[in-house]
Amino acid sequence: MDITTIIGLILGFGGVLLGYHEEGGEFSALVHQASPYLIVFGGGFGAMLVTFPLSELKKAFSSVQLVFTQKKYNEIDIINELADLSEKARKDGLLSLEQDAQSNKNDLIRKGLALVVDGIETEVIKDILARETELHEEIHEAGVKLFEAMGGTWPAMGVCGTVMGMISILRDLSDPLALGPKISSAFIATMLGVGFANLVFIPFAGKIKAKTSRETMINELIIEGLLSIQAGENPRIIKEKLNLNLMEKLNGKKNVTAGAEEGAEA
Amino acid sequence: MDITTIIGLILGFGGVLLGYHEEGGEFSALVHQASPYLIVFGGGFGAMLVTFPLSELKKAFSSVQLVFTQKKYNEIDIINELADLSEKARKDGLLSLEQDAQSNKNDLIRKGLALVVDGIETEVIKDILARETELHEEIHEAGVKLFEAMGGTWPAMGVCGTVMGMISILRDLSDPLALGPKISSAFIATMLGVGFANLVFIPFAGKIKAKTSRETMINELIIEGLLSIQAGENPRIIKEKLNLNLMEKLNGKKNVTAGAEEGAEA
Amino acid sequence: MDITTIIGLILGFGGVLLGYHEEGGEFSALVHQASPYLIVFGGGFGAMLVTFPLSELKKAFSSVQLVFTQKKYNEIDIINELADLSEKARKDGLLSLEQDAQSNKNDLIRKGLALVVDGIETEVIKDILARETELHEEIHEAGVKLFEAMGGTWPAMGVCGTVMGMISILRDLSDPLALGPKISSAFIATMLGVGFANLVFIPFAGKIKAKTSRETMINELIIEGLLSIQAGENPRIIKEKLNLNLMEKLNGKKNVTAGAEEGAEA
Amino acid sequence: MDITTIIGLILGFGGVLLGYHEEGGEFSALVHQASPYLIVFGGGFGAMLVTFPLSELKKAFSSVQLVFTQKKYNEIDIINELADLSEKARKDGLLSLEQDAQSNKNDLIRKGLALVVDGIETEVIKDILARETELHEEIHEAGVKLFEAMGGTWPAMGVCGTVMGMISILRDLSDPLALGPKISSAFIATMLGVGFANLVFIPFAGKIKAKTSRETMINELIIEGLLSIQAGENPRIIKEKLNLNLMEKLNGKKNVTAGAEEGAEA
Amino acid sequence: MDITTIIGLILGFGGVLLGYHEEGGEFSALVHQASPYLIVFGGGFGAMLVTFPLSELKKAFSSVQLVFTQKKYNEIDIINELADLSEKARKDGLLSLEQDAQSNKNDLIRKGLALVVDGIETEVIKDILARETELHEEIHEAGVKLFEAMGGTWPAMGVCGTVMGMISILRDLSDPLALGPKISSAFIATMLGVGFANLVFIPFAGKIKAKTSRETMINELIIEGLLSIQAGENPRIIKEKLNLNLMEKLNGKKNVTAGAEEGAEA
Repeated sequence: MDITTIIGLILGFGGVLLGYHEEGGEFSALVHQASPYLIVFGGGFGAMLVTFPLSELKKAFSSVQLVFTQKKYNEIDIINELADLSEKARKDGLLSLEQDAQSNKNDLIRKGLALVVDGIETEVIKDILARETELHEEIHEAGVKLFEAMGGTWPAMGVCGTVMGMISILRDLSDPLALGPKISSAFIATMLGVGFANLVFIPFAGKIKAKTSRETMINELIIEGLLSIQAGENPRIIKEKLNLNLMEKLNGKKNVTAGAEEGAEA
Repeated sequence: MDITTIIGLILGFGGVLLGYHEEGGEFSALVHQASPYLIVFGGGFGAMLVTFPLSELKKAFSSVQLVFTQKKYNEIDIINELADLSEKARKDGLLSLEQDAQSNKNDLIRKGLALVVDGIETEVIKDILARETELHEEIHEAGVKLFEAMGGTWPAMGVCGTVMGMISILRDLSDPLALGPKISSAFIATMLGVGFANLVFIPFAGKIKAKTSRETMINELIIEGLLSIQAGENPRIIKEKLNLNLMEKLNGKKNVTAGAEEGAEA
Repeated sequence: MDITTIIGLILGFGGVLLGYHEEGGEFSALVHQASPYLIVFGGGFGAMLVTFPLSELKKAFSSVQLVFTQKKYNEIDIINELADLSEKARKDGLLSLEQDAQSNKNDLIRKGLALVVDGIETEVIKDILARETELHEEIHEAGVKLFEAMGGTWPAMGVCGTVMGMISILRDLSDPLALGPKISSAFIATMLGVGFANLVFIPFAGKIKAKTSRETMINELIIEGLLSIQAGENPRIIKEKLNLNLMEKLNGKKNVTAGAEEGAEA
Repeated sequence: MDITTIIGLILGFGGVLLGYHEEGGEFSALVHQASPYLIVFGGGFGAMLVTFPLSELKKAFSSVQLVFTQKKYNEIDIINELADLSEKARKDGLLSLEQDAQSNKNDLIRKGLALVVDGIETEVIKDILARETELHEEIHEAGVKLFEAMGGTWPAMGVCGTVMGMISILRDLSDPLALGPKISSAFIATMLGVGFANLVFIPFAGKIKAKTSRETMINELIIEGLLSIQAGENPRIIKEKLNLNLMEKLNGKKNVTAGAEEGAEA
Repeated sequence: MDITTIIGLILGFGGVLLGYHEEGGEFSALVHQASPYLIVFGGGFGAMLVTFPLSELKKAFSSVQLVFTQKKYNEIDIINELADLSEKARKDGLLSLEQDAQSNKNDLIRKGLALVVDGIETEVIKDILARETELHEEIHEAGVKLFEAMGGTWPAMGVCGTVMGMISILRDLSDPLALGPKISSAFIATMLGVGFANLVFIPFAGKIKAKTSRETMINELIIEGLLSIQAGENPRIIKEKLNLNLMEKLNGKKNVTAGAEEGAEA
């Protein structure tokens, strides 16, 4: 569970709706008419479908999980684990890692250890793992592109909805007092477009981008570590090369494996 | 037929028009006056003609088909086909591919096989196929540039149209009740500019971009595969090098050639 | 004569003015006051002068001819011509090209042939021709920058003009009916800024960019072709290397030298 | 203490509030209603939390100190210090730097000297120090991204707040004189969003970026200097290589170590 | 004196103020209230101070001179001068350039000749001169960044000022006729922000950028020329390598040293 996403959504929508309530707005007024929803949601999702092929949409939706979930490991855990594996390999030989190649929690470590145990050459392992990393990044980029595109389209559809409201309202000015509530409704479209873009879509794109770039960094640590294991380097050097000390300092903590969950984002 | 484009356009325009209808707008009001159409369409298409030379316009229009059509093949089919060709070449010699060089459905595979059968050297084949790929990309980029430019110009022409409407309306304020319908008409220009830009042009640019980048990826698979066939590599290695397993996992399916159409975007 | 520029300008300004006329606007109202013109044109051209040094302005203005003229040759003509020159050189020796080095219509071919005939070494020819190409590109880039800058400044000056109009108008609300025509005048500034930016400046920048990038592509073909001629390659190979077939297919035509003018943008 | 940040914030907020007071605005009117604060602060901070994972937020917040603090050293001090260390090393040997490796004020010099004294090879020292520099840059980049994102989101939430205000106000037009104060309140949201974005968030991002890029430049000087010390180069050459003269000229001063504090930004 | 800057500022501000006068605006109305100036100037300069450290501000201000001054030399003069120096060096030896190393008008030529006369090796000269060029570019980039940032902040502060004006005005609607002049004043803030950004800050950034890029080009010519002199190349080759002919053609003139001043921007 990504706690900042949850708190952020509650804080954002909570603040906006509470503020609206504070200045005397009634919630029923926001939903008593279907028209702004039809225009903004119809136009917004329609534009999304025209923009992205089905394959990109699937990738993008599968990247949404990044927004809500939290990885159970962090850089420091990974570095320590790789150092442990290196120690085991140096003591009992590379073949002793066969068990880990099946049971390790991290997909990339598992795949990489299998290749190392199989005795594949360094360059090929590097290529295969790098390509695997890239394909995962590509999926997440699809999510970033989708939410950024929606962040641009929805406010425009909001303006479009408000303008369309004005077009139908202004055709009859005979009852000035009746204009207010109608114009009020027309503004709901702008609020929907701007609100969803800035509270949901643009932030979602940002979070996917931030998590992908961190995952990429961790994957690079893993690839570098696995190649060091294959090369038979000793655990201390691996920790040094992967900057364990600096990371601990930057994270302001000593690594405690038991505290991995909070540590994941520490 | 690209189903997401069709559904997206229906959903987008349907939602917008239904929303307009819901808040009491009459469709006749949207079209009873030629003026916003003259300003937005005239200005928008005029700017397009000034911006692009005839050669770019032709390329751009030919790239529109990408928005509405669906390729009949996908990465997994291509990889399997290349592996089959490699098997055939290893069993019966490269010359046995002559038939495939004429009958294969994919242009690039056909051209590449012809070069392989002719015994052209690897570097030259690579150059020719890469250049062919680039020229196709260039055509699609013309489409992306055109629709992105229109996505920027049309809302501006919409604002221009509304402002011009206000200029002629405000010259006479003597009959306040008559102002409403006139201002209403003036807003139609903004609606047209913002609507077409966000429901059609910007999404079209996005879809061409997404499909071009996927086609480029598939073309790279094909070039890499053809060079492996020429080098006499075995089918299993080709599948491995082109990451067949990972692609199947990402697409969440086993490859069934018969299901190629849906598979194309799976 | 670049026909799309002419048609585009007529269509753009024609549509906008016809639309204005359709909704009852009088053309005299657009020009009866100097004030919006003073603000938008004065501010717009003033900003242009502050932005660009005299040397850049000269380059930019000389690039305007690209917007209105049409080159008399196209890729296919150039490739065929280079192939013919290569045939001649192989039959009668490089010195036989001396005549062509003086009479060829294309500046770059002329200069390149002179260098080839003089027996200058390949690397030096490549450098000199590449630098010449770059210097021409730089001139055109000055035009792109100028018109893009004006496309950004003019709408802002339009808004500035309208706001200044409102400042002087709102100081006296005693005669409400007199306000309309004054506000109407104030909006003319916005119309001028947005209109000129989107119908003229931004499209001009786009066309210069498109033509420059095509010219660069053709210049690259020429440089590659000239070096092949110097190397004594045969005409068939030159056509192959420069992708003649593909270009013909992309242009949807067979090359007919007599049809060069229309062919130029085919 | 970064004096320009302090003066800038006082000048910015002072000018804005004084200007508001000058035109007869009462400060109580700005704060008598919670609603715009709930919408803009709630929405703005909510979007921030959704956008950034906890780990990025921590990095970003730790980079805020850059906005308010001033480094006590400048390029010229660093170059002179490195030259002095080089002189010492040449006279008494690299081991004589052990004391400096513990007492030097600059983290990177301290770490680098320790590695030099330990006799680690040049390439490894370079790698470790470069990686250390990169990790620090990454922290500051997190701050730049955070404040730039907030600079984009807050004005949008301001518009959203004002629109929501209008939605609740326009539902009842029966008492026209009561509308004014209500609309006045609705505008406070726009003021908050635009004001905070332009007086705080965007400038904070700018200052972090400027200081990071200067720190990176200084770190590069340090790394280059330390490697020269290890290579036993003489102090004069080190000063020459690090462009001491030019820097003094650019800073318009002779280096006076005692004046280091003001000199830091000279 | 950079004549285009002067004429541009006069044309820009002249046009805007004359246009304002034409539509009946009184200049006194623009300045009779301090409030918009406090908000826009206070907020604008405040944001500037928060954004840039003192060191960047100093660099930026020193780059302002580029906007108003004109270099006394141009590419053609420089090329000829370098060719003359090369002739002298070939006739009387490199040492004969000692006098020129002290008296030449151009800083970079002076510094470069001194290094050449001292017999420093080619690579080192190249490094030192390139670094010097980069440091100067960096100063000018600080100016570009500053004025671009102000071009973004000022219009936002203008909107902020107008919104704040509306907040204080709308609190009391009891005297409708008094509203006009107040709203009129509130709009002055928008005019100030948009006007200064588009007539001063953005154009200043543009001019610094254009002049820096030209200066960089000239500096590259100088470095290339000085290395040719050191290598003992003959003047004709130097002119050829530095494309003297083409430059003369592009500038549409033969080089007349006596006409250097106008020639500088020809």
